[in-house]
Amino acid sequence: MKEKSSQETQQGTSSLLIILRRYFPILDWGASYSRRTFSSDLIASVIVSIMLIPQSLAYAMMVGLPAQVGLYASMVPLLLYAVFGTSRALAVGPVAVASLMTAAAATQVAAQGSAEYLGAVIAISLVTGLLLILMGIFRMGFLANFLSHPVISGFITAAAIQIGTSQFAPLLGIRGHGENLLDLLTSMVPNLASINLYTAAIGLASLAFLYWVRLGLKPFLQGIGIGERLADLLAKVGPAIAIVATTIAVWGFGLADRGVAIVGLIPEGLPRFSLPPVQPSLWTTILVPSLLICIVGYVESISVALTLAAKRRQRVDPNQEMIALGISDVGSAISGGFPVTGALSRSVVNFDAGAQTPAAGAYTAVGVALATMFLTPLLFFLPKAVLGATIIVAVLSLVDINALKRTWFYSKADFAAMAATILMTWVEGVEVGLVVGVALSIFLHLYSTSRPHIAVVGQIPGTSHFRNVTRHTVVTDPEILSLRVDESLYFPNARFLEDIINDSVAANPDIRHIILECPAVNTIDSSALESLEAINHRLKDGGITFHLSEVKGPVMDRLKRSHFLKELTGKVYLTQYEAVSSINPELAQQTREAKS
Amino acid sequence: MKEKSSQETQQGTSSLLIILRRYFPILDWGASYSRRTFSSDLIASVIVSIMLIPQSLAYAMMVGLPAQVGLYASMVPLLLYAVFGTSRALAVGPVAVASLMTAAAATQVAAQGSAEYLGAVIAISLVTGLLLILMGIFRMGFLANFLSHPVISGFITAAAIQIGTSQFAPLLGIRGHGENLLDLLTSMVPNLASINLYTAAIGLASLAFLYWVRLGLKPFLQGIGIGERLADLLAKVGPAIAIVATTIAVWGFGLADRGVAIVGLIPEGLPRFSLPPVQPSLWTTILVPSLLICIVGYVESISVALTLAAKRRQRVDPNQEMIALGISDVGSAISGGFPVTGALSRSVVNFDAGAQTPAAGAYTAVGVALATMFLTPLLFFLPKAVLGATIIVAVLSLVDINALKRTWFYSKADFAAMAATILMTWVEGVEVGLVVGVALSIFLHLYSTSRPHIAVVGQIPGTSHFRNVTRHTVVTDPEILSLRVDESLYFPNARFLEDIINDSVAANPDIRHIILECPAVNTIDSSALESLEAINHRLKDGGITFHLSEVKGPVMDRLKRSHFLKELTGKVYLTQYEAVSSINPELAQQTREAKS
Repeated sequence: MKEKSSQETQQGTSSLLIILRRYFPILDWGASYSRRTFSSDLIASVIVSIMLIPQSLAYAMMVGLPAQVGLYASMVPLLLYAVFGTSRALAVGPVAVASLMTAAAATQVAAQGSAEYLGAVIAISLVTGLLLILMGIFRMGFLANFLSHPVISGFITAAAIQIGTSQFAPLLGIRGHGENLLDLLTSMVPNLASINLYTAAIGLASLAFLYWVRLGLKPFLQGIGIGERLADLLAKVGPAIAIVATTIAVWGFGLADRGVAIVGLIPEGLPRFSLPPVQPSLWTTILVPSLLICIVGYVESISVALTLAAKRRQRVDPNQEMIALGISDVGSAISGGFPVTGALSRSVVNFDAGAQTPAAGAYTAVGVALATMFLTPLLFFLPKAVLGATIIVAVLSLVDINALKRTWFYSKADFAAMAATILMTWVEGVEVGLVVGVALSIFLHLYSTSRPHIAVVGQIPGTSHFRNVTRHTVVTDPEILSLRVDESLYFPNARFLEDIINDSVAANPDIRHIILECPAVNTIDSSALESLEAINHRLKDGGITFHLSEVKGPVMDRLKRSHFLKELTGKVYLTQYEAVSSINPELAQQTREAKS
Repeated sequence: MKEKSSQETQQGTSSLLIILRRYFPILDWGASYSRRTFSSDLIASVIVSIMLIPQSLAYAMMVGLPAQVGLYASMVPLLLYAVFGTSRALAVGPVAVASLMTAAAATQVAAQGSAEYLGAVIAISLVTGLLLILMGIFRMGFLANFLSHPVISGFITAAAIQIGTSQFAPLLGIRGHGENLLDLLTSMVPNLASINLYTAAIGLASLAFLYWVRLGLKPFLQGIGIGERLADLLAKVGPAIAIVATTIAVWGFGLADRGVAIVGLIPEGLPRFSLPPVQPSLWTTILVPSLLICIVGYVESISVALTLAAKRRQRVDPNQEMIALGISDVGSAISGGFPVTGALSRSVVNFDAGAQTPAAGAYTAVGVALATMFLTPLLFFLPKAVLGATIIVAVLSLVDINALKRTWFYSKADFAAMAATILMTWVEGVEVGLVVGVALSIFLHLYSTSRPHIAVVGQIPGTSHFRNVTRHTVVTDPEILSLRVDESLYFPNARFLEDIINDSVAANPDIRHIILECPAVNTIDSSALESLEAINHRLKDGGITFHLSEVKGPVMDRLKRSHFLKELTGKVYLTQYEAVSSINPELAQQTREAKS
């Protein structure tokens, strides 16, 4: 359909349309929007709204902001993502990990509860959005690669456990606060004696109920004859039941007077246009945290988007996703909210409930707006304890202890990066945890490539194949040392090759020729070139000729741009066999005879 | 000889000897030390001493310390290196770049000229030495690999130009000081009006003479009938002539009274045992600078040692070299000196002059000690200008502008790292320059591997070979997508593979099978494993089977430790041909017919 219509229009209009469609995906799916799609999207949006409203209030509480800010972050960003997003099912809005990171960053600027604190959160949201937009426009999505999987996985587990722990404060009605798990525990434990029993009763009952909803409601509903899909969706709206029930209980029994913390007055109506404060010092403080929020948020979001898109063989454009999430964050900032991203659980629900297009997100925004306009008075008696329980159950799905075990078995280096990320997050906070994890994973990666596999090879008699001398019965010539390098040559391993050749030559006085077989060398950087030149130079001084074989095309092209090939004492051979037979024709002859 | 004697002794004694010989190489070469070797070493040591004495005074001045400290750094360290060093020709002692770095680090702790400043220098020397010893014992020489060749080469050029520029202050008798080239120039230029003409005359004349000695003396001596080798060595002692001539001139014409800065009183006698000050804050400040000094010093030194060893097919042990240089630095610290390392120019002279063993270094130390005991009164009138000229000519050999050009042609990424190192060194100082260079080269390395070459391959008719579809005439099946990855799969490129497969599937609705051909995949880390699992999972949702082919042994061994192979919808084939013929036997048949 698309191809046909672009062929019909003129070339200029067509390429303009392609560009417009790339940056405004709404033009793409909007053109074929039907009544049928509308009803699918609408149903999905109702279910997601019912999930989102309590979560958004809870995340606002977690960031340390008034409840309505969570609702604000669930309107404008969703509308903007519907225009710019390429995922058909991603549910954008406040999420747990980004909220934790935002709170940690804003606390460095101002005290929770102050006007400056809200200003800092808005500024973080704005900077996060602008960074994402820049990264998207300049196609810098590769920056997300620096966050290796063990680091992001460990970080999310650590953050989720820390978030869950922090919510025991509202859940039990005690005080407790800290930028990392250690501070949090040391601040909460002494207050355990001052638990408010009414709060704790509401909190623990909600927690038990929500946990049962999560695990037991779906089988229960199926047991009483409800179809699987409907049972699944009804289980997702369980938290709303807890919200309504506990609010009525607090109101009916007057529990607010008995020390149960309630949400209280939420201003009715839609958010107003806001601008972050202009203080140069603020911006420099939040730059790195915002960069981390934008990368972590993007990685969480794109992975959900890709997984859901694959189920219907749809396409997600990673760079446009960055732009769309960035615009959503900017939208959140100017409507007084905090950073948003694609949420794992809500996106899955949105998809399962039948969302066909990003319009479902826009309808969700409308649902949240209607609730903000008309339902907020009803939330006056909503106890904070049930919000805490909501968060605890929501983050449970993010904890992946098994990943630690799997990684341990697969790679000790990756496990080390993962464990360091978790420990540093708990002891020093989210930013240090992430930065240490990234630095350590890069370090371990470079370390692992710094000692590449280099095999001494010999000829398998009667063939033109060369194999590791320690694993095969092969023929070698004491005057020829053939080494196969199983790794690209670059700065982390350049000197290692020098050492290996140096030691081999010192140990074998008979060597007259060294052949470096390079079938797995995908690149040779300037450091490795320098090492090869040094090796060639030193071997020449020792009366040894240096040859290469099986050099790949692109590597050879680049070598031709240096002086190395001119200075090389030996030759570059197409194959290892050609190299050996050219240097010692007799050996090739012998091995042929050995076979016959 | 060695083998025979160890066979004769008992097993236990023999292995102890091997360990002793590893850590005390003097036991190795000392056992066969002859009168002939002694005379070779002695001649070399005399020539190196004549080079070293003015240089050590000059480097002490550069570090901002009294002249005798340079002499102290040229005694104990050389004796210790003779015991522990594995290079037969390395000349250890003060060098230009390490001296510059030491001055930069010590200035952060105390003002030049204060007692605290000398204390800081001694502490830096001690920490540098201890770090080297630790790195040597724990075989952490790979840390030096992080300093890629473009970074170290750019850094040395930048440092040499900065050192050379700084010496125009003593050379012209003006004031000028700065931690980077920018500060240095802005502090020197306004003082150009206050040049001391006598100083400038001595300085510029010395500079012209030394420059001529460097370039023209050898041909001149050869022209008057002196043999090449002798001419070469005589040219190296040229600076001593300048020292003697200018000292006599200053003394004879009373130039010290006319504002020519002189070295003045140098305390006679040998250094005394010293200990660095014990201040915790000092140690944390100098830790990173000391680490940089130890790595830069080691890299400079090992490269000279390896090059010289290769000329005589001798062995240098990189880890033992770290230990030896570390012990030398500790020795320098406790005898009141500053960090030392293997010097490029003096080592080459030592080698050319016939040094056979590290004993030559010990004799050089004795030479310096004798000079310190008996000749220092003669150096009273030595003008600082001639020391400045000595430094300028010495660092000229370190400037390698051509390297910039070579690197530009070979690799733009490496050039960027090199240029950034140079600029940041000049603008922000040596530490920032090095750290930015290292960070940038790691970043660019990861970036370059983040987009690996992935080719769509097809079967060459009538063969079992598969080649890139864009370069060869090949047969493909619209239902089978064969992708060859020409790089290891790890976190920098894991998501790129996901994107490529995602896009291919979205663009080709016919695809039923994807085969990933992995002949150049040397490793698959946890991030890439996660990506492969996600790809397999998503393809499964889209009804596509995912296969692998030509997976290397070690990679396969590791995959077996994960759940991936169990979850894989397709199979792992030994060869790409086997994969395609197993999935579509008809295609293999057709291509066979096409040939016949």
